[in-house]
Amino acid sequence: MAKKKETGELGENDQRTVEKLESLGKEQLKEIGAGQSPSFEAPLRGKSNVFYDPKSGYLHLGDKKERRVFLNVAQAKKFMQTIAVAAKCKKFKEENLHTSIRGLFYQLKFSLGEDVEEELFEEQEQSNPIIEDIETALTLKREDLNLSTDRKGVVAGPLVIKDKFGGDEVTIDCTKQGRSGWMVPSDVDNGMEFVKCDAKYALIIEKDALWQRLNEDQFWKKENCIIITPKGQASRGCRRLIRKLADQGLPIYCFMDCDAWGWYIYWTIKTGSMNLAYLGSEIAVPEARFIGVTMKDIQTYDFLKKLTIRAKEVDIKRAEEMLGYSWIASHPEWVEELKTVLESKKKLEQDALQGPRLTFVGEYIRDKISRKDFLP
Amino acid sequence: MAKKKETGELGENDQRTVEKLESLGKEQLKEIGAGQSPSFEAPLRGKSNVFYDPKSGYLHLGDKKERRVFLNVAQAKKFMQTIAVAAKCKKFKEENLHTSIRGLFYQLKFSLGEDVEEELFEEQEQSNPIIEDIETALTLKREDLNLSTDRKGVVAGPLVIKDKFGGDEVTIDCTKQGRSGWMVPSDVDNGMEFVKCDAKYALIIEKDALWQRLNEDQFWKKENCIIITPKGQASRGCRRLIRKLADQGLPIYCFMDCDAWGWYIYWTIKTGSMNLAYLGSEIAVPEARFIGVTMKDIQTYDFLKKLTIRAKEVDIKRAEEMLGYSWIASHPEWVEELKTVLESKKKLEQDALQGPRLTFVGEYIRDKISRKDFLP
Repeated sequence: MAKKKETGELGENDQRTVEKLESLGKEQLKEIGAGQSPSFEAPLRGKSNVFYDPKSGYLHLGDKKERRVFLNVAQAKKFMQTIAVAAKCKKFKEENLHTSIRGLFYQLKFSLGEDVEEELFEEQEQSNPIIEDIETALTLKREDLNLSTDRKGVVAGPLVIKDKFGGDEVTIDCTKQGRSGWMVPSDVDNGMEFVKCDAKYALIIEKDALWQRLNEDQFWKKENCIIITPKGQASRGCRRLIRKLADQGLPIYCFMDCDAWGWYIYWTIKTGSMNLAYLGSEIAVPEARFIGVTMKDIQTYDFLKKLTIRAKEVDIKRAEEMLGYSWIASHPEWVEELKTVLESKKKLEQDALQGPRLTFVGEYIRDKISRKDFLP
Repeated sequence: MAKKKETGELGENDQRTVEKLESLGKEQLKEIGAGQSPSFEAPLRGKSNVFYDPKSGYLHLGDKKERRVFLNVAQAKKFMQTIAVAAKCKKFKEENLHTSIRGLFYQLKFSLGEDVEEELFEEQEQSNPIIEDIETALTLKREDLNLSTDRKGVVAGPLVIKDKFGGDEVTIDCTKQGRSGWMVPSDVDNGMEFVKCDAKYALIIEKDALWQRLNEDQFWKKENCIIITPKGQASRGCRRLIRKLADQGLPIYCFMDCDAWGWYIYWTIKTGSMNLAYLGSEIAVPEARFIGVTMKDIQTYDFLKKLTIRAKEVDIKRAEEMLGYSWIASHPEWVEELKTVLESKKKLEQDALQGPRLTFVGEYIRDKISRKDFLP
């Protein structure tokens, strides 16, 4: 039904993905040829198989694996679903077209609904873990399978990107995006490359409002840096982009609230998260440093004292939890910071830096960087 | 403390805003000079003062007003807050700098905390309605007051924009934004103009995933149209942008889910919303048409029948509510559509159009437009 799109050859990364998907099928044909039940093996992604590696500084999966065989009543259905998803993704790769998981769900519902008695994918929740199975088994990302993910995040600064997409090729200069900035896409790997990236550092700013403040001040031009806001929790694409900038040798400074969310967003960027531990080194940025805001800042910037606000229960609970994580509790600076919040029951938002004058935000960042006043 | 920014003169719109803010102060000085208590008058924004006007086709405020005087114990605090906010906004205008409501809150907390015994703005909830008071009293938008709002939404297609911001001027060509698109900013009026806008129509697409699908197919190039996703409920900036495109004479077609959210997003774009009724004609787009998806589509595209999914309680409740609104119930096409959902207890997502092939989404839009098969 779907005809091959005339957009030339697939990229190197795309080729590798198709080969991996094909090898999955060939492996199963071999098993069938040998009179065995076809099988599928993927690492377990449950918490019991997630570990923090102090040497590399991020969360990753352990060695536990799950094996699924077709000729097993309990596993046959899930096995078939896995093969159906892999086949659809191979088709998307060959068509050179992308869709969302929801789009995949409807393709499966459309094609399997006729030939198969039972509708395999009644709800999307069933197709989601199967995609993760394929990601981990073939060590690739769903973005490589032409499945787009929720995108969020904005960039400005000296970064030039070449974007090959939909048969077109455009060059995006992130110094020329005005008030809007360049929106971080779902996939920053396939068909996308950095043409120029000679900034001094990348500044990750939790809130879009603060990003807009610094963008208006042309902070990125004055400092020759790249400013990125994930707009809260960082999307997969945004985390991958930050990882790629770190790979270019850029220091990564994170500018967040001093509260439950700010800390969580920072540590997710830095060490990765439980849910995405299977992506490990692909998205974790252990080099990241926490620039602020911190309760310790009050010692330097006296006016901040009257701009603290009451910590909420979620902030207190989170601070207590964090003290229980070995990779956080091993840093005395973080222990001190979290204990200050627990004792004072106060927190501090990055927005507070606008108290004395709107442009103080940039002055603060410059000052903190010049004094290398970071949390690890 | 804040010095005037060297970015040249204010634009025409900016000038008008400053004049309005000044006239507010002058009016009060006059009252004081006449031995009266200074006062402030603004239209009431409660539901009792929101009306739908069948002639113009949108929600707007009625004539009820609230008067606040300084020499009144019950009103003095709120009166002072209003003046303090107006003064800060005037300062932002003169500095030619923007901030969020949260930034404004901290500026007030910083400056009033010292001179005034009682902290007027302990929580942001207090400053929000005061900004709306000023918006309605002076008939301008908070964006005009240099207050940025949450931004959301993405654009691609034949639209060229000149963006004067932060001392720079850039030209954004929405045909050259690759996979990302151009992100809709908070303010699409001040310092921003359409340089070129010769598309045949604008297509508003509820979900970003579907927007990405059509962007990859370069639907906007083939159809010479502008594609916009509000990413769910449309932001103030996005609604204002759609209004401005309609002002250019572009037909506005809305492509949404056939469910509670899809309908809600459509009607908010079309008639405005209760909360923002005070912005009335500035953001409502009565010309908008609902292109789909609809339950009626199943009669044309047979395969959609097996891609419907169970309607949730929220969908049923919303459909019932909508039948109670005079401006919806007056359209027999909408009554039929909503009754179909209520009777079948089924709904349809725009994603389902990808069932037979990913590129069917564009085929569907083309077909519906050529047959003028819209809901009003």
